[in-house]
Amino acid sequence: MALSEFALIERYFRSCGVPRADVILGVGDDAALLRVPAGCELVAATDTLVAGVHFPQDSPPDSVGHRSLAVNLSDLAAMGARPAWALLALTLPQADEAWLAEFAAGLGELARSHEVALVGGDTTRGPLCVTVQLLGFVPAGAALTRSGGRAGDVVFVSGTCGDAAAGLAVEQQRLTGPAEARRWLRERFLRPTPRVALGEQLRGFASACIDVSDGLLADAGKLASASHVGVELAYSELPLSEPLAALLGERHARELALTGGDDYELCFAVPPHHIARLLSQLPPQEWRYTRIGALRAAPGASVVRDGTVMEFSHSGYEHFS
Amino acid sequence: MALSEFALIERYFRSCGVPRADVILGVGDDAALLRVPAGCELVAATDTLVAGVHFPQDSPPDSVGHRSLAVNLSDLAAMGARPAWALLALTLPQADEAWLAEFAAGLGELARSHEVALVGGDTTRGPLCVTVQLLGFVPAGAALTRSGGRAGDVVFVSGTCGDAAAGLAVEQQRLTGPAEARRWLRERFLRPTPRVALGEQLRGFASACIDVSDGLLADAGKLASASHVGVELAYSELPLSEPLAALLGERHARELALTGGDDYELCFAVPPHHIARLLSQLPPQEWRYTRIGALRAAPGASVVRDGTVMEFSHSGYEHFS
Repeated sequence: MALSEFALIERYFRSCGVPRADVILGVGDDAALLRVPAGCELVAATDTLVAGVHFPQDSPPDSVGHRSLAVNLSDLAAMGARPAWALLALTLPQADEAWLAEFAAGLGELARSHEVALVGGDTTRGPLCVTVQLLGFVPAGAALTRSGGRAGDVVFVSGTCGDAAAGLAVEQQRLTGPAEARRWLRERFLRPTPRVALGEQLRGFASACIDVSDGLLADAGKLASASHVGVELAYSELPLSEPLAALLGERHARELALTGGDDYELCFAVPPHHIARLLSQLPPQEWRYTRIGALRAAPGASVVRDGTVMEFSHSGYEHFS
Repeated sequence: MALSEFALIERYFRSCGVPRADVILGVGDDAALLRVPAGCELVAATDTLVAGVHFPQDSPPDSVGHRSLAVNLSDLAAMGARPAWALLALTLPQADEAWLAEFAAGLGELARSHEVALVGGDTTRGPLCVTVQLLGFVPAGAALTRSGGRAGDVVFVSGTCGDAAAGLAVEQQRLTGPAEARRWLRERFLRPTPRVALGEQLRGFASACIDVSDGLLADAGKLASASHVGVELAYSELPLSEPLAALLGERHARELALTGGDDYELCFAVPPHHIARLLSQLPPQEWRYTRIGALRAAPGASVVRDGTVMEFSHSGYEHFS
């Protein structure tokens, strides 16, 4: 096949995502030209997915497209930002049109649902690897960060935790059990839901926020560390999905909820005097978040069960550990 | 070695580039927070370098760092933009501290010379691959694009062409000749000079601009095509470096000047009525650019020698051709 690089980009990515009035110049020139709204700060994130490391080599292409954007949407969600523009750096072993079409469909569907325009990128030959850069904005001074938490702030997490790690095990045929539960968990790995709307709503409530990509305990620990405090999570309060508990049993499910990666939920801290307003304006049953612990003065991240601090041998995924 | 991802990023990239007052939040949170100057448009580009494709596997690490930023600086130069902030997505087979230190030194030196701050990124394990996303800005409405050229506009190119392709051949020990000439050409491949200052100065003069990454003939053709015109280059006017002509002889040197990639010079079109002002305000001997041809109504890209149109079997580098 001799489809040129330019034809590839044209065909699959020119109309990916939504058209936006603030895109002055999109795919096709040396760089994109974009208009940041007055009174807003620019928010920029980038994340890479490597085949065989962040997803199985034979993952469905639409899942690779979905996840490559979702991980970045999740980063912007953690800042309370509104996503706007994406650039795609795609490295492929060969120009496989069927693969590209499915990849672009997965990326495009998620982009459209968040009103994101694909405005540029680069297509290169090499081992399969996808890097998306996502740009968005937030009203000046209103961004959520990891570092604003204080001792006494209550810690919440959105959704349920541990599902994606179990879903990856399903995808790799390392986990058996009822087909329905396996299907549901596999979807949680293949097509995670970044909590963008929740992130935006948390501005004005949360003192600190992080997205849960490396495991709840590790990421809550990073939030605490950036805030110069510690964090204590309540073992019994960790939100578990029914399929996870059904497949793994409660003990293993709770362990995975603490240490499994790739959930892309938000973990956030809320000062006690904001709690009542949070609960009335963003009721947990609608926005799907759970109170799981608190920040404390003593550094470190720990989990408490029946008044006893638990030990964990591993606290999340580190790429080079 | 068990250096965690976070320690890696901290150590080598936290202080890479320059500190900037418009960086509200840099490396270390879920995303960077940046302030685009009032009255400016945001300019965003991304380019990937894959080991074994865009540089030899055993390239000097500082060259890989330099080039990963240079290719993006060149994209912004082609827009007439001022670079400001970079994000780095680095995929590495292992956490090799010596490699990282040299890579960061090469990237950092070029970043400092253009007052670019490294504001975020992602470090992952996998086959060696570097994607930089570069952000900058340009006064609203003033960006150079590929598409503004008109028939009759005069075409220029900065610097000399073909050097980097010859330098790659030197690096791969495919080219013999005097050591001094080989050293100079090798440097042109390993540490290209993006024409950022020239790009900014061309605002108000150039009707269209592109950076020469895939070969002069191919890239001039892309500029012409985006402008809905054609381009004719004069074989005898192509700017050759002395080392290139000395090593290859004039005929081969001119062919490489037309088709060799990776020079990262600027090719730009200037309307005839702007030429006198261009030559007086940006004299060619200081800004190192050469008049090499003109845009024309008839589509396509051709090279004319002694009144005859020449044929070329390949017109530049396409990743999937």
